[in-house]
Amino acid sequence: MKNTFGSNLALTLFGESHGEMIGAVLDGIAPGIVIDDAYIRAQLSLRRPAGKISTARREADEYRIVSGVFEGKTTGTPLTILIPNTSQHSKDYSATRALARPGHADYTAYAKYHGFEDWRGGGHFSGRVTAALVAAGAIVLSALKQKGILIGTHIASCAGITDREFDDLSKEIPALNEKAFAVLDDSRGAEMREAIEAAAADGDSVGGVLQTAILGVPAGVGEPWFDTVEGVLSHALFSIPAIKGVQFGDAFAMVNGRGSEYNDSYYISDEEIKTVTNHNGGINGGITNGMPIIFSCAVKPTPSIFKAQKTVDFFGRNDAVLELKGRHDPAIIHRARVVVDSVAALAIADLLVTRFGTDYFMN
Amino acid sequence: MKNTFGSNLALTLFGESHGEMIGAVLDGIAPGIVIDDAYIRAQLSLRRPAGKISTARREADEYRIVSGVFEGKTTGTPLTILIPNTSQHSKDYSATRALARPGHADYTAYAKYHGFEDWRGGGHFSGRVTAALVAAGAIVLSALKQKGILIGTHIASCAGITDREFDDLSKEIPALNEKAFAVLDDSRGAEMREAIEAAAADGDSVGGVLQTAILGVPAGVGEPWFDTVEGVLSHALFSIPAIKGVQFGDAFAMVNGRGSEYNDSYYISDEEIKTVTNHNGGINGGITNGMPIIFSCAVKPTPSIFKAQKTVDFFGRNDAVLELKGRHDPAIIHRARVVVDSVAALAIADLLVTRFGTDYFMN
Amino acid sequence: MKNTFGSNLALTLFGESHGEMIGAVLDGIAPGIVIDDAYIRAQLSLRRPAGKISTARREADEYRIVSGVFEGKTTGTPLTILIPNTSQHSKDYSATRALARPGHADYTAYAKYHGFEDWRGGGHFSGRVTAALVAAGAIVLSALKQKGILIGTHIASCAGITDREFDDLSKEIPALNEKAFAVLDDSRGAEMREAIEAAAADGDSVGGVLQTAILGVPAGVGEPWFDTVEGVLSHALFSIPAIKGVQFGDAFAMVNGRGSEYNDSYYISDEEIKTVTNHNGGINGGITNGMPIIFSCAVKPTPSIFKAQKTVDFFGRNDAVLELKGRHDPAIIHRARVVVDSVAALAIADLLVTRFGTDYFMN
Amino acid sequence: MKNTFGSNLALTLFGESHGEMIGAVLDGIAPGIVIDDAYIRAQLSLRRPAGKISTARREADEYRIVSGVFEGKTTGTPLTILIPNTSQHSKDYSATRALARPGHADYTAYAKYHGFEDWRGGGHFSGRVTAALVAAGAIVLSALKQKGILIGTHIASCAGITDREFDDLSKEIPALNEKAFAVLDDSRGAEMREAIEAAAADGDSVGGVLQTAILGVPAGVGEPWFDTVEGVLSHALFSIPAIKGVQFGDAFAMVNGRGSEYNDSYYISDEEIKTVTNHNGGINGGITNGMPIIFSCAVKPTPSIFKAQKTVDFFGRNDAVLELKGRHDPAIIHRARVVVDSVAALAIADLLVTRFGTDYFMN
Repeated sequence: MKNTFGSNLALTLFGESHGEMIGAVLDGIAPGIVIDDAYIRAQLSLRRPAGKISTARREADEYRIVSGVFEGKTTGTPLTILIPNTSQHSKDYSATRALARPGHADYTAYAKYHGFEDWRGGGHFSGRVTAALVAAGAIVLSALKQKGILIGTHIASCAGITDREFDDLSKEIPALNEKAFAVLDDSRGAEMREAIEAAAADGDSVGGVLQTAILGVPAGVGEPWFDTVEGVLSHALFSIPAIKGVQFGDAFAMVNGRGSEYNDSYYISDEEIKTVTNHNGGINGGITNGMPIIFSCAVKPTPSIFKAQKTVDFFGRNDAVLELKGRHDPAIIHRARVVVDSVAALAIADLLVTRFGTDYFMN
Repeated sequence: MKNTFGSNLALTLFGESHGEMIGAVLDGIAPGIVIDDAYIRAQLSLRRPAGKISTARREADEYRIVSGVFEGKTTGTPLTILIPNTSQHSKDYSATRALARPGHADYTAYAKYHGFEDWRGGGHFSGRVTAALVAAGAIVLSALKQKGILIGTHIASCAGITDREFDDLSKEIPALNEKAFAVLDDSRGAEMREAIEAAAADGDSVGGVLQTAILGVPAGVGEPWFDTVEGVLSHALFSIPAIKGVQFGDAFAMVNGRGSEYNDSYYISDEEIKTVTNHNGGINGGITNGMPIIFSCAVKPTPSIFKAQKTVDFFGRNDAVLELKGRHDPAIIHRARVVVDSVAALAIADLLVTRFGTDYFMN
Repeated sequence: MKNTFGSNLALTLFGESHGEMIGAVLDGIAPGIVIDDAYIRAQLSLRRPAGKISTARREADEYRIVSGVFEGKTTGTPLTILIPNTSQHSKDYSATRALARPGHADYTAYAKYHGFEDWRGGGHFSGRVTAALVAAGAIVLSALKQKGILIGTHIASCAGITDREFDDLSKEIPALNEKAFAVLDDSRGAEMREAIEAAAADGDSVGGVLQTAILGVPAGVGEPWFDTVEGVLSHALFSIPAIKGVQFGDAFAMVNGRGSEYNDSYYISDEEIKTVTNHNGGINGGITNGMPIIFSCAVKPTPSIFKAQKTVDFFGRNDAVLELKGRHDPAIIHRARVVVDSVAALAIADLLVTRFGTDYFMN
Repeated sequence: MKNTFGSNLALTLFGESHGEMIGAVLDGIAPGIVIDDAYIRAQLSLRRPAGKISTARREADEYRIVSGVFEGKTTGTPLTILIPNTSQHSKDYSATRALARPGHADYTAYAKYHGFEDWRGGGHFSGRVTAALVAAGAIVLSALKQKGILIGTHIASCAGITDREFDDLSKEIPALNEKAFAVLDDSRGAEMREAIEAAAADGDSVGGVLQTAILGVPAGVGEPWFDTVEGVLSHALFSIPAIKGVQFGDAFAMVNGRGSEYNDSYYISDEEIKTVTNHNGGINGGITNGMPIIFSCAVKPTPSIFKAQKTVDFFGRNDAVLELKGRHDPAIIHRARVVVDSVAALAIADLLVTRFGTDYFMN
């Protein structure tokens, strides 16, 4: 249903990059969940651009929750978050109006909305909208945490530099969640930042891979056809601008191996069934097996670059040249990571509410 | 909604591997589409196991369409396809009942259905169910073809052997659609088959990558949040057993490059806006741009292998040993390819009906 | 989603009156529910025409459950029921082909399906399709009963003759469920039958009101906007052919009274909050209050009558005369009652599964 | 999906009576629709209380559209309307906190939300929320009007006084849409107002019946099972507080008649198929037949009355006495009428977009 995601816990997103505000309606969240404003603000600040490796646009992200919260706790009715836009420089975009920026949604928006779309700064397609996702996601992440479910993401690679692998999730996830540049090995992180700065100096941009772990989801969640955990998660994740690929466990590595290498053997420990390895990323037949859910997202290089690019306009002009001005990110992977956590939280929480009912998050 | 996929053109799947029959209900298909039985049979035969590289189970797949067709054409009301199971060897599974086969859904099904699931041959989780998907998909593929939309898939890699790349889609897609082993370069295909046979000889299995192209979808289809083309396609694709990763365009290659390399420049040709390259796989901002939609699926090695594996049973026994008997596929990638085409057809057709209304496929 | 109803417990209907079979897929039903074939058959026989007050078409309704049941119990995967058609007299309809039967869906089906619809006997619009609803509903009614939830319907009025009112639901519901002609006062029932026979003798038909009670649904089920209990129930009920009105509690009586007469006062009995009266039919603000859910359906007189009627055909002929042949019901209210129970069961069960999770019906 | 309604054109509602604001997100509306602020304001003023027959709470309803509109026209992306609450007298409710007001949703909200609900003034259940519905509905009504589709409602009866019947819809609908107290016969309207004032003088309240006509919907819209026009409309209508019954055409009158009286005969006029009578309210088999869609809603007497009422509190106190203070409506039927038009507009527009695609309203 278009701008709404979720079957029983649903999020509706609205707003444009250069409009008055962006926002989200979170519907189906259990009553009684404490709103932790400090945590919401912290999550928003992880998404917010900062330093040389991000756009110069600085938004305060001063959200307001205008419904669904009473005396500091969720009521169970739709929770609406509004985040005003305050730092629009819409003039930056006037010059390039009607030019299809390569890699962006300008042309596809034009094809879909026939020129009525708000084209300023990407409009409704802008990554700016993810601020609302992150604010709503923070509330869901709080609710999940109360049930012992943790989500964390690291920059597995950026500009060709790879982070080390996950090793001890119960410690690494909380640590990652505190970091502004989420890597397991900070020295690799420093190299990545240098590579981003180098690309920025060239007027260019870079991409990377985000790897996410979800700890604590019980076995037996998800459906065989079609609401597999993979299907529901990927459906939501592909909404995040720049994400073009999603794999679970070791998918694109497994394709070159054999079944005997990649079947995850079972064993019992403390009366719980576990697997020795986790190549399948915690999911078999579309359903959780109780092991950590592991997935990776391919984040393409940000399409906004300062190099001159050949393009067209919507009125038939060929061979136009686009020279972007304005404020752009040479990389968004370090900012996208908290968006991935938020989206994953929404999708997993929806599956849990579907499985266990609307009061699941109540205590 | 669990075993139903699609917003306006919806498919509901049912049946178990060793039950009486499997089937599908296709709802929302336009009236007046000619049922091409020869084509449905041909598609089913592409999915059906054959030769040494597939399971020895041979099903006739004699489908019946029991509703929604009148005088050889769709009526517009729900179209139901039934495919009887005729070659169940359920005894093959009695010995391994209660043993969790590694890489399979036995344990997750147990966790979800509390032991009431039909465990024989994977039950409702079985790849057998995809026969119904393929039969329904054939009808949708016919409808798409009438609108000039073609879908084709090749085995981009198998057991580490890679096919050549797509070059001229309008010729390659029809050619692939005729092949039992869908590769662009048949000599590579021969190598792949040898690798599969070698794995089979070892009692082992292999995986690979399927790459799919969809030609002829107009620009402007899909939604920014959350029903992106990528999101809707991946949601459906991850239902196919063994698919663990999906990428659009060059996703996992782009992560190591720069924006200037991977932004697809626009140009105008014959009054149509096109892109010089297609790294984004025909989709920007979640919406089609009129270029071919390109995606790839990671198919893990089939989990059914004949080597002994350590596992557990559901009643607390650790260190059990599983020695599979029965009939299993050393690779399913060559069979899965027509399932991918069918699922892609359903998802794309649903997006088109959502965009253009219920009569879109009428003429 | 067209021919599928339900959010978490969903039913998909298919089939045509004169096609090979009709059927239903019930998805989301908990595992472990015992299939009670005698009860399903009994429910089907209550729907089946019998005696002089029903059509002469006699169908055996020999259903088969072809998926989702294993060893006599539901598995939790889609449960498919097929009911072959055996007594089609399609020739009865050839003469009236292209004539729009007044009060029927012939013309609207033509407008929607452009002439490709199966027009024989009403096709997919036929009341025949409700046999599949009743079979699926019987399974859901069994599941509800295990949770202490009872549903029963009486013919509150027929041809202007009224039954007495509900008095002691816990006794009356089981009694009604056994009756072929479901009235609380059998002498009124006898009058109704006479009135039906009189209409039949005139080649005419009659309608009436069905009133339904649902006992045992806990307080707190339903949503304020938009999935109110009234909204969900009525959405499903209006699918039943001939139902044109639905009221909850004393709706159309309350409109002439005052708040002080119709506010249901609360009191506490055995630590449970109850209401002294139940004018609101067990629902306030769209949500159950723990009192019996009471609603009434207006069933219009059956449109198939033997009197000559003026009409048109689809090719522009005005002033055509329709003289029906074939087998038709002078009343369907006595048969529709078990369909209402079945549809109500599906809608209420869906709301319960949404509220309490997928295992709600497990024990 | 809870607080969202619509398959392809969807509305999400949020907000509480005494919260900061209420609002709505309208998603799926075509791009290019002109926002007519004067019309939106006019519609809001029709809903707003006025004079002695309404509550003394006066809200300015100064809505803001904060997304989805650019340069005065819809963009096609989610359109968000916010309406601040400015005249809350929350203290009026403190005294009655924990008392279950008879006929209201207090107790059912408590049962559902476990005491975390915002109980002030009915919270999310309040009729106040319908202001957002009306603002969103005004945009949809504008879009429908451009396609020649008109919707109008009259107070068919109030406090036992009946209006005259519809006679010439194409004139009566525009006239009704201008009236603050929407009756066809103003002298009957004057009697109704007197009856409302009389009830108010007694500290009591009255109800009535609203009858609605929709003109201009083409034949062939809706589904046989389950998304019948009746089902979709009633699903939405029952969300409106105080509506407890919905009938199409002459439903509750037809139950006492015969088929020969109520079958609507077809004839052809100006090459269009029409019916002589319209007892079925423009719908056969769940699908529009091109005749006006006619339905009636039973509006119960407002539950807020000033007479003392016996009730309970949520902590076990029996025999409490509720004496309401504050500002309440002795009747809401005259205000509800514009809410009915708005809800009907949303439901019908959704069916049209489903049928004809997302650009249906574009020109």
